[in-house]
Amino acid sequence: MNSIKVFAPASVSNVACGFDVLGYPMDDVGDQLIIKKTPVKDLVITAIHGDNQLSRYKNENVVTIAVQALLDHLDSPPDFGFGFELTKKVKPGSGLGSSASSSVAGVFGVNELLGRPYNKEKLVEFAMEGERASSGVAHADNVAPSMLGGFVLVRSYTPLDLIQLDYPKDLFTTVVHPQIEVKTSEAKKMLKKQIDLKDAITQWGNVAGLVSGLAKADYGLISRSLKDVVAEPVRSMLIPYLAQAKQIAMDCGALGCSISGSGPSIFALCRGKEIADKTARAFKALYDQQNIDSNVYVSSVNTKGAEVLE
Amino acid sequence: MNSIKVFAPASVSNVACGFDVLGYPMDDVGDQLIIKKTPVKDLVITAIHGDNQLSRYKNENVVTIAVQALLDHLDSPPDFGFGFELTKKVKPGSGLGSSASSSVAGVFGVNELLGRPYNKEKLVEFAMEGERASSGVAHADNVAPSMLGGFVLVRSYTPLDLIQLDYPKDLFTTVVHPQIEVKTSEAKKMLKKQIDLKDAITQWGNVAGLVSGLAKADYGLISRSLKDVVAEPVRSMLIPYLAQAKQIAMDCGALGCSISGSGPSIFALCRGKEIADKTARAFKALYDQQNIDSNVYVSSVNTKGAEVLE
Repeated sequence: MNSIKVFAPASVSNVACGFDVLGYPMDDVGDQLIIKKTPVKDLVITAIHGDNQLSRYKNENVVTIAVQALLDHLDSPPDFGFGFELTKKVKPGSGLGSSASSSVAGVFGVNELLGRPYNKEKLVEFAMEGERASSGVAHADNVAPSMLGGFVLVRSYTPLDLIQLDYPKDLFTTVVHPQIEVKTSEAKKMLKKQIDLKDAITQWGNVAGLVSGLAKADYGLISRSLKDVVAEPVRSMLIPYLAQAKQIAMDCGALGCSISGSGPSIFALCRGKEIADKTARAFKALYDQQNIDSNVYVSSVNTKGAEVLE
Repeated sequence: MNSIKVFAPASVSNVACGFDVLGYPMDDVGDQLIIKKTPVKDLVITAIHGDNQLSRYKNENVVTIAVQALLDHLDSPPDFGFGFELTKKVKPGSGLGSSASSSVAGVFGVNELLGRPYNKEKLVEFAMEGERASSGVAHADNVAPSMLGGFVLVRSYTPLDLIQLDYPKDLFTTVVHPQIEVKTSEAKKMLKKQIDLKDAITQWGNVAGLVSGLAKADYGLISRSLKDVVAEPVRSMLIPYLAQAKQIAMDCGALGCSISGSGPSIFALCRGKEIADKTARAFKALYDQQNIDSNVYVSSVNTKGAEVLE
């Protein structure tokens, strides 16, 4: 196999109460990456479609940074190189794990071309190096869902412990991405290093409730648990019309609605596609009214994660 | 029915990572309460066995305080009173929800004698008034498990939202109660009002892991999740030989070991009775060696909660 085309999904991280530990990937929305073996032992980004601001320098693009982390881990590196043609559907700064999609696509595809020396769990660690380069912190709450599929819990970072949660398969997500950029690193800076113990207790009560609700398919419990008292109150000022979007989503029958990652995208989690579609139309109308361009996506929770397309 | 004998179990709260939100009750260990209707409209504690320090004044004992909260909630209070004969197997200040057992037994028994005007979930709210009187805070992480049985999550306090978690039925707990007293109110005071966000993230990753592990019967995940980075590091100085007890429990094959409630009792959670028994013997030997009297209990996770004995 000399070339491969792979897909790595965009993802919703935090999921309201699961700050830095929870995420799930979307269908169709994400990065496509064509990888070709090349005779020269080098990593070369030959083209980037869908974004004209990303660097093609191998030390500046997360695809090649993550792939290099994989190659550095091999006992005997290959005697050939790789060329990458990246097609991005979600731009950086969306809160949808754009950089994670690229990192995951890179390491997943190269791993396939090398005959799968690593399993997906191990690949997450290499993809995290892309996150470190992108945001300064090697977080996993986008790369792990994008790689593995499904609701993923990052139980621990040291050591990395990724848990694929049980969840009902009729969950859909609606995401609206208002076309304003929020830098993850800036959004992270807004959070204080300490939080009130009482807020922490509220948050872990909700995380526990969400995990239990997902496992039991208890939609009421899922809905009651989808609350964020830690990041959302701080970051909400960065997201235009968040309060209105939340109200609209709940009026449409969504289970919950909050900021995706560090924003500005907003996600709603819904039972069934009908409610998700209704929420999507309402989101679009909200931002149209305010003359803010927006992209709206409806998706089931992607069960496969990173996959080979061709 | 003019009299009743009820049992309300002692309980392990916090369960390492679930500070203030998780707990489970024990078998056999707890409070027995005989309640008799009396012609005089009053609440009278006629006898307390097993503890000679508890007040029998109705405004000072949690049994009658909690029962009064129930009576105050009735549209039409009964035209008779109640007499209470309390037998305590666990002393206050144990970290095993001693006051919660008493409060639960009181409201559960009186509710039975009144023809069950309330369900168990509602009774928890009255029992919490006993906790408020006992520790200054109306917490539910002992009263809810003692009342309802099983692993209980207090997802939220406002409004009160109690979740009965799924868990494998071969879990046993070993508890050692070194005979030193730790006041819950003092132990609570040791905790700071703020915690590091990174510790909070670790804690809610573990809570999520524990709930998922319990639901999936994934014992490895349960074990990896039974860690407390919030309360245990602060309170450990109050508990003699905690580090040794933890090591001993893990050496015996326990899934995890930490402080029960605010201590000084220490719990181990084990898969199967054999490991729990082995851990019990090792706990006893540890404290015997140090010339510290201790009570050791082995119990499955009580599935019934408060119950009628006669």
